[in-house]
Amino acid sequence: MKSYNELTLAERRELYSELSAVYEEYRAKGLSLDLSRGKPNSSQLDISNGLLKVDLSSDHASEQGIDCRNYGVLDGLPEMKKLFADSMCLDPSDIIIGGNSSLQLMYDALMRAMLFGVYGSKAPWSQEDKLKWICVTPGYDRHFRITETLGFELISVNMLPTGPDMDEVERLVKDPKVKGIWCVPKYSNPTGYTYSDETVRRLASMKCAAPDFRIMWDNAYGIHDFSEDKDELADIFAISKEYGNEDRVFYFSSTSKVTFPGSGIAFMAASENNRKQISKYLGAQTIGYDKLNQLRHVRFFGTAEKMHSHMLNLGAVIKQKFDITISKLKVLSGLEIAEWTEPRGGYFISYNVMPGTAKRVYELCRSAGVTLTEVGATFPYGIDPADSNLRLAPTYPSDEDILLAMDILVLSTKLAALEKLGI
Amino acid sequence: MKSYNELTLAERRELYSELSAVYEEYRAKGLSLDLSRGKPNSSQLDISNGLLKVDLSSDHASEQGIDCRNYGVLDGLPEMKKLFADSMCLDPSDIIIGGNSSLQLMYDALMRAMLFGVYGSKAPWSQEDKLKWICVTPGYDRHFRITETLGFELISVNMLPTGPDMDEVERLVKDPKVKGIWCVPKYSNPTGYTYSDETVRRLASMKCAAPDFRIMWDNAYGIHDFSEDKDELADIFAISKEYGNEDRVFYFSSTSKVTFPGSGIAFMAASENNRKQISKYLGAQTIGYDKLNQLRHVRFFGTAEKMHSHMLNLGAVIKQKFDITISKLKVLSGLEIAEWTEPRGGYFISYNVMPGTAKRVYELCRSAGVTLTEVGATFPYGIDPADSNLRLAPTYPSDEDILLAMDILVLSTKLAALEKLGI
Repeated sequence: MKSYNELTLAERRELYSELSAVYEEYRAKGLSLDLSRGKPNSSQLDISNGLLKVDLSSDHASEQGIDCRNYGVLDGLPEMKKLFADSMCLDPSDIIIGGNSSLQLMYDALMRAMLFGVYGSKAPWSQEDKLKWICVTPGYDRHFRITETLGFELISVNMLPTGPDMDEVERLVKDPKVKGIWCVPKYSNPTGYTYSDETVRRLASMKCAAPDFRIMWDNAYGIHDFSEDKDELADIFAISKEYGNEDRVFYFSSTSKVTFPGSGIAFMAASENNRKQISKYLGAQTIGYDKLNQLRHVRFFGTAEKMHSHMLNLGAVIKQKFDITISKLKVLSGLEIAEWTEPRGGYFISYNVMPGTAKRVYELCRSAGVTLTEVGATFPYGIDPADSNLRLAPTYPSDEDILLAMDILVLSTKLAALEKLGI
Repeated sequence: MKSYNELTLAERRELYSELSAVYEEYRAKGLSLDLSRGKPNSSQLDISNGLLKVDLSSDHASEQGIDCRNYGVLDGLPEMKKLFADSMCLDPSDIIIGGNSSLQLMYDALMRAMLFGVYGSKAPWSQEDKLKWICVTPGYDRHFRITETLGFELISVNMLPTGPDMDEVERLVKDPKVKGIWCVPKYSNPTGYTYSDETVRRLASMKCAAPDFRIMWDNAYGIHDFSEDKDELADIFAISKEYGNEDRVFYFSSTSKVTFPGSGIAFMAASENNRKQISKYLGAQTIGYDKLNQLRHVRFFGTAEKMHSHMLNLGAVIKQKFDITISKLKVLSGLEIAEWTEPRGGYFISYNVMPGTAKRVYELCRSAGVTLTEVGATFPYGIDPADSNLRLAPTYPSDEDILLAMDILVLSTKLAALEKLGI
């Protein structure tokens, strides 16, 4: 396939005219398709329907005999901790089980940091001026929104196939105003990249000017492999301990994309120093989280092995949608107008169009009935400086809808590139 | 019965000797009884077991067709709002449904106030110095703990049978540093008193120097009547609107003591101005709460009428325990060494022993195997200045255990009073 850069003006004009005709045909169909929603569709949710059949009415006791219908147990059922620990290679004693949302646990952790500080803080963060936070881009908009809401200056660092650009991260953390970094270390949202062992080691060992620097380690897709051909993530707790930096890590995950979004179980894992400091405030915040839902999850899964099989069943369904999406993108190979990632797990594909054309691609798609995640959503303050990145979320639409939507996306990508090159 | 104040020294000595002998007999039994835990026992929980049988596996759609297994709906299912609104005489549009804990919603509301202010604030509260908070005493320790943790100076105001001493409250709110008040307006913890209509009107209409003063209206026992012979609480939203003060009220409740503590549904109700300000931050905090548990509750109850019947069933069980407790206290009538409340709903009985003897009563009970709520727990900073108040929680123990524990409590009350009077 000939690169668009090698086309003459006449060739570009001819091609643009041809593609426009096809585009108009699609547009005339009055479609309504959506590639923006990072949520499961009902066939994926059905895989967890057994969870809704778990009948706890006659047996609602934990292994230790705790009546899960009643008050008590602030930090979660031991068997729930064990299930998470076994499936994510963590120490159960490091785990605090939360409610239905890991995002809320992250928000809570940073609200506490603002008002009370974290372990190692000299003062509550809200008493320090002009704090900064590292955002790996493209990244997760809801992470950025929390730190933006809390008044941090958001500093972008590029995501590479190995994880954040660590040269840049190591340079930035020499500034004591830089208090932390958002990380989705495995099948990162939206690139699908997994941090390399070297990246994890550099994050765990780097010298931070802020004594209370925190890595917000959102391992949201830690067990979301499409198959046994999967990425491996290094154990940040083990490595950070080698350097005496285990207090640096706030680890989060949940079953939101394992069972049901909004009705799953979230957790936080942290060092003993961190847990002691957190427990003090957690005890003021709540009497406890939903133990019946913990028990429901424990009864449904039984063991980490069964949870693993469940994830492979789910992964097979999602992989098919990713395969369809990527097969459509492949027609762009060699044109030098787009790049994309091909993750082995997670929820998203990162799609980079010719710089300066992402907004135009978004508009063309929208005009033809295809909703994409808004351009800039994957960047701090909603601004993609290169106007290039689009996040593709193929889990929710039907296979047929993905095929149609991708045809329109590919067409729009070509049209926008030709417009940029000149027609 | 002759008042202890009228006894001669000789009479007191003789009585003390007699009672001590009985006390020692109880002590020798090596009992282990607990009147401290404000939680339901399993027979009360069993009344809600139908909730655990609700099978959502084949029908998980809300009335509007929302798949409750998936993301979406930040502020709760409309039918859950309607159920709460119908049962507590609220406007469904004022309601934000939360997670499993109203305490957490209160904590969240005040954390937001500290970092971002509330509607009407000139600045985040954490930027103001030496803020104060009114605590009605005796009251709920976990309320006090939240504002203590946030650094407020806690100011005690006496609880009267009509609610807080409003003369004192109206005097205090002339200080702009006083930012709010904790209220449990119906069957208050621990007195069981319900605020009179006049008290509600004075709270709704009083002139507060702080423009962003907040009433934390924790209507935890709003529907927790023992029978149709019940207390009525005035509608604070309606009354505060008469005075243009509807932004003053943050209203909270939950099903923690309706269905299952820790696995129920909590909500907050507030004015439009407040909801707009809150929603901005709520959207940063979470993608949404557990809609499946909302749906489970809606399916279990169906209507507010059925919820009402459910509460009367529960109330009958609890009333029996209250009746047993109070019948035992009645032997103290006329002795002028103790007073107690006789609530028509809620969860607690407030028990005042002779001033200066509560700690001694607590110790005597503990020594004989009866655990009471710690003296001072119902006061800010855990200090009861009169050393007089004890909170009795009769819901958890069996009827037999209550009878035994109350015998010991009555004995301990008498012994401590005699010691105080001199023996």
